[in-house]
Amino acid sequence: MNRVPGRFITVEGIEGVGKSTNLGFIAEHLRARGIEVLVTREPGGTPLAESIRCLLLEGTCSVSPLAELLLMFAGRASHLDELIRPALAAGTWVLCDRFTDATHAYQGGGRGLSKATIAALASLVQKGLEPDLTLLLDAGLAVSSSRRGGRGTADRFEREADPFFERVRQAYLELARTQPERVRIIDAGRPLEAVRRDLVAELDRFMAQLAAPEGAP
Amino acid sequence: MNRVPGRFITVEGIEGVGKSTNLGFIAEHLRARGIEVLVTREPGGTPLAESIRCLLLEGTCSVSPLAELLLMFAGRASHLDELIRPALAAGTWVLCDRFTDATHAYQGGGRGLSKATIAALASLVQKGLEPDLTLLLDAGLAVSSSRRGGRGTADRFEREADPFFERVRQAYLELARTQPERVRIIDAGRPLEAVRRDLVAELDRFMAQLAAPEGAP
Repeated sequence: MNRVPGRFITVEGIEGVGKSTNLGFIAEHLRARGIEVLVTREPGGTPLAESIRCLLLEGTCSVSPLAELLLMFAGRASHLDELIRPALAAGTWVLCDRFTDATHAYQGGGRGLSKATIAALASLVQKGLEPDLTLLLDAGLAVSSSRRGGRGTADRFEREADPFFERVRQAYLELARTQPERVRIIDAGRPLEAVRRDLVAELDRFMAQLAAPEGAP
Repeated sequence: MNRVPGRFITVEGIEGVGKSTNLGFIAEHLRARGIEVLVTREPGGTPLAESIRCLLLEGTCSVSPLAELLLMFAGRASHLDELIRPALAAGTWVLCDRFTDATHAYQGGGRGLSKATIAALASLVQKGLEPDLTLLLDAGLAVSSSRRGGRGTADRFEREADPFFERVRQAYLELARTQPERVRIIDAGRPLEAVRRDLVAELDRFMAQLAAPEGAP
């Protein structure tokens, strides 16, 4: 059976930009168009990667930046091999809450690890697989930190201070500048209705490209 | 204060060759010569790396070879930065039950991952730090598997079959052939007394080289 492979869409952004809420909305929008969608997240997505997520987020152990980076990619290797690649091969679209762009933003921009090291690890585990579309929810620190403040117990990342998140945000924006076709910036500082209108426009544009002969795989 | 850095000694070998028993003996032998010794192990040695050890050994989650490799190096990064380097800098000798040679043997020889990938990750986390001396306890599979069989619950590695351990053993022996000055083979298939006589001879030889002008750091 020669199925068309599924598409790999990632949603990125710092804490408090509305990623979780909008992820459900995107999945519904795709399903309403008859697309089978698997919603997953990083770090996480497999039993091993969810255990790694606990180590990364709970903050009971000291985790150096390099150990953090290697744990992220260990979880990603598991996630890709056991969940993402099989789903894509079966024609299912994968909608993932964060992926390697987040590693460039958090471990690169936030923690200061080198782009070359991150790219080498990405190449090792992704073996050429990249997201087809990345929706970057972007908002100024004033918006995201007020939303972050409204949450319960903060995890190891949420406990970072504003300058950390500003570096993360800037690294995300740089990715969008260098890969503008793949990484689409959505201004998440506006009312939910406006954000969703833009998300729908991006998704429709993406699907129209797939349908067009020159956009076909 | 300009202290002489400690020395880094690793003990390697497949399951059942008597590593644990002899590790204590080596530590005692060094301490009897007035050396401060920190005994540690891999995977493990820090709270994070011990948590990673649980994920690697317990076998409740599926762990792909690449995820296994990245977890090993995540634990190693933590172990090096938080325990091994500070101890060596303070003049303490570090005696470690397994290190990167085990990754070459188990993930390289055993699981078939490439030497180049393992070497790139080793370079990333070790930043040039290598063991000063590696004692490789070697015995044929007949010896080690009879000892392995006598144990209680087997971990995820111990449940592997003999051909896996034969590949691991051969990879260890290859490391000893390519780095004969650092990696010293101890025939562990003999009575404990003979094994310990050889361990003492290797340690004494190593310390004599340190004392000699040309062997000084």
